[in-house]
Amino acid sequence: MTVTAPDPGAYLDHAATTPMSPAALEAFVAEARRTGNASSLHSAGRAARRAVEESRETVAAALGARPSEVVFTAGGTESDNLAIKGVFWGRRRTDPRRTRVLVSAVEHHAVLDPAFWLAGHAGAEIVLLPVDGDGRLDLDALRAELAAHADEVALVSVMWANNEVGTLQPVREVVRLAHQHGIPVHTDAVQAVGQVPVDFAASGVDALTLTGHKLGGPVGVGALVARRDLPLEAVLHGGGQERGVRSGTLDVPAIRAFAAAVAEAVEHREERAATMAALRDELVAGVRRAAPEAVLRGPDPAAVTGAPSSGTPASSPARLPGNAHFTFPGAEGDSLLYLLDSAGVQASTGSACQAGVPQPSHVLLAMGVPEVEARGALRFSLGATSTRADVERLLAVLPQVVDRARAAGLASPRAVAGGAA
Amino acid sequence: MTVTAPDPGAYLDHAATTPMSPAALEAFVAEARRTGNASSLHSAGRAARRAVEESRETVAAALGARPSEVVFTAGGTESDNLAIKGVFWGRRRTDPRRTRVLVSAVEHHAVLDPAFWLAGHAGAEIVLLPVDGDGRLDLDALRAELAAHADEVALVSVMWANNEVGTLQPVREVVRLAHQHGIPVHTDAVQAVGQVPVDFAASGVDALTLTGHKLGGPVGVGALVARRDLPLEAVLHGGGQERGVRSGTLDVPAIRAFAAAVAEAVEHREERAATMAALRDELVAGVRRAAPEAVLRGPDPAAVTGAPSSGTPASSPARLPGNAHFTFPGAEGDSLLYLLDSAGVQASTGSACQAGVPQPSHVLLAMGVPEVEARGALRFSLGATSTRADVERLLAVLPQVVDRARAAGLASPRAVAGGAA
Repeated sequence: MTVTAPDPGAYLDHAATTPMSPAALEAFVAEARRTGNASSLHSAGRAARRAVEESRETVAAALGARPSEVVFTAGGTESDNLAIKGVFWGRRRTDPRRTRVLVSAVEHHAVLDPAFWLAGHAGAEIVLLPVDGDGRLDLDALRAELAAHADEVALVSVMWANNEVGTLQPVREVVRLAHQHGIPVHTDAVQAVGQVPVDFAASGVDALTLTGHKLGGPVGVGALVARRDLPLEAVLHGGGQERGVRSGTLDVPAIRAFAAAVAEAVEHREERAATMAALRDELVAGVRRAAPEAVLRGPDPAAVTGAPSSGTPASSPARLPGNAHFTFPGAEGDSLLYLLDSAGVQASTGSACQAGVPQPSHVLLAMGVPEVEARGALRFSLGATSTRADVERLLAVLPQVVDRARAAGLASPRAVAGGAA
Repeated sequence: MTVTAPDPGAYLDHAATTPMSPAALEAFVAEARRTGNASSLHSAGRAARRAVEESRETVAAALGARPSEVVFTAGGTESDNLAIKGVFWGRRRTDPRRTRVLVSAVEHHAVLDPAFWLAGHAGAEIVLLPVDGDGRLDLDALRAELAAHADEVALVSVMWANNEVGTLQPVREVVRLAHQHGIPVHTDAVQAVGQVPVDFAASGVDALTLTGHKLGGPVGVGALVARRDLPLEAVLHGGGQERGVRSGTLDVPAIRAFAAAVAEAVEHREERAATMAALRDELVAGVRRAAPEAVLRGPDPAAVTGAPSSGTPASSPARLPGNAHFTFPGAEGDSLLYLLDSAGVQASTGSACQAGVPQPSHVLLAMGVPEVEARGALRFSLGATSTRADVERLLAVLPQVVDRARAAGLASPRAVAGGAA
């Protein structure tokens, strides 16, 4: 009797979560074998505190920040909640007129939902800034909003790179416009760190979110990098850790592992990004061959961003190197996802679909994609461990998968409405 | 040249954090080697989701709860914030008069600080319920408060066991009184799980906080166990995980490890508690011999709780089995802590002292301990790995440590005020 190893398949969903690197896991285990609360004053506590502060220095150095600007959190969602709510409350405290929260229409729910919660509970007014057909922020809309209401704006939040279509946002230009009015800028850089250059100080942003499990670190740990002069109230209250901005026992093993992963991701970013981009370009070309009717969403990977006046180097890519995103006319994204999965390829619809109910992505809708087309979305995302074999596996099975998904067709609008209820 | 192993010392601060059990660490590593976001729909995601749901069942079974009542969080502080703020907002939504938050005066800061934040930001009125000289809740005060203001009460929060002096609270009696008025009860059971029997359903509480790193699990993971009919709004908003009550990517390795630790702690609770209590009693007797002037704070370990009408079995202890707490007249707790640490014994002042500035514990002050006495506080806390050698080591060095600390004397009130500023 022979036993064959299970088929590992092709994992093309690194934007959802990417494997923990061996170095990060090793750092976790080494620290987990020690005992000590970093708030304790005895020697075990002080050793834990040193591990935290060394990790803080590592993260800061990798991101062009000062150690005192790094606030450890339990991950991207908490960091985004802290930035949106914390700055809203902090800014409104000194001027009650500051109730407007400006966010791009393509933000992650971890930014959108805290903003809308503030609207329901704390008198915030949410302004959704439009994007163009590639998902890139409309700077004229931001300019107009600031010209009309600058005195009432609490903060602006625009992500560094979109999690669905990979579009890089003009963060420096956003900062330039907002800072003309003294308005702080937050950016969710969860998808960007380790994929494109991210320098906190050089970007000019006042707060930046990153998280461990998108860059080779553990889940459940992340950071908000925040300028010390940013008005920032806590979201989690208690023991007063992290200079009172984030209470909760410091998760020393996870922080150690996170720091190791950030350092590794940033150190190897350039060659990994080049490899990912080359694989992604093969993937895009292959999908176009296999399914000519598929529409690439987001910027063309070959495009470079615009005017030198934006402060973005002309050679910068317009899109994350590891991201590809298509809509497949006449197919449901979920059908494609499940059929691919059966064929050993793991991808994502890219939407916040919670229960298998087809709901079009708010990102695609904001880009002007018609709802019926948006429902055929599929995101492929590469990571540091991606190989050509992953791409080849996808391309080998894709034609048949697309045929079958199109044969199944789109769920009727009535079924969608019923399912979503 | 001979090299000697470093002295491991005697770790007597398990209430701050206790070692991660080998089983929990093994569970973490096994899960961390797999990749998959539990919200992803492909097979890797579904495998991660199964791990989460199995862990939820494990935690629920250990605590006498239903799986659907377990909400995973990043730890005790987040669970407490969710309970206090989430229930406040949820209850006020259906009746705006419900603005009063009743908390015992000896709660952890993770309960007190969210409550006071609500007072500053959301119109809450905080009622600090008094305790007796042992730190036990004054039920008459609760009764009187409910008689006068029941219609205005959003929730009651009384901890299962105090983290400083180990006092077990009359949680069932609190529930009985509060439920007479339809008011929900939250309990912070962070120190209790694994030390005393904790049964969610039998206790009658509506929400219960526990955390990993106090019971052999990792830091950075915990749960709020909450009845499904409890009005509970989210504190962290985003992807809608945990039935919308707690957004953020599920930390599958930590959740697996947490569940393993909870199961282990509860399974071995009885014999471990007996061992800890015996060691703790030796410690208390030894401290009394070594420093006859020291005053035990909190209930006498030998005492049993009161009237059968309270619903607490008469044989229940009045205090956590692993906890001992003393004040040493004429000595600063910090001096004792540092001198013990130099002698290889790690303990805690038990206060929320952040920077080595002597500040008396709010718990001791609420118990009526004079400020000058409260400053001489020292907490010893045992865990599953504690040994007689730990206790013997403490007792061997304690007389000299106390002598030296008393010789150093108390910081002058002026110095204290200056330092605390």
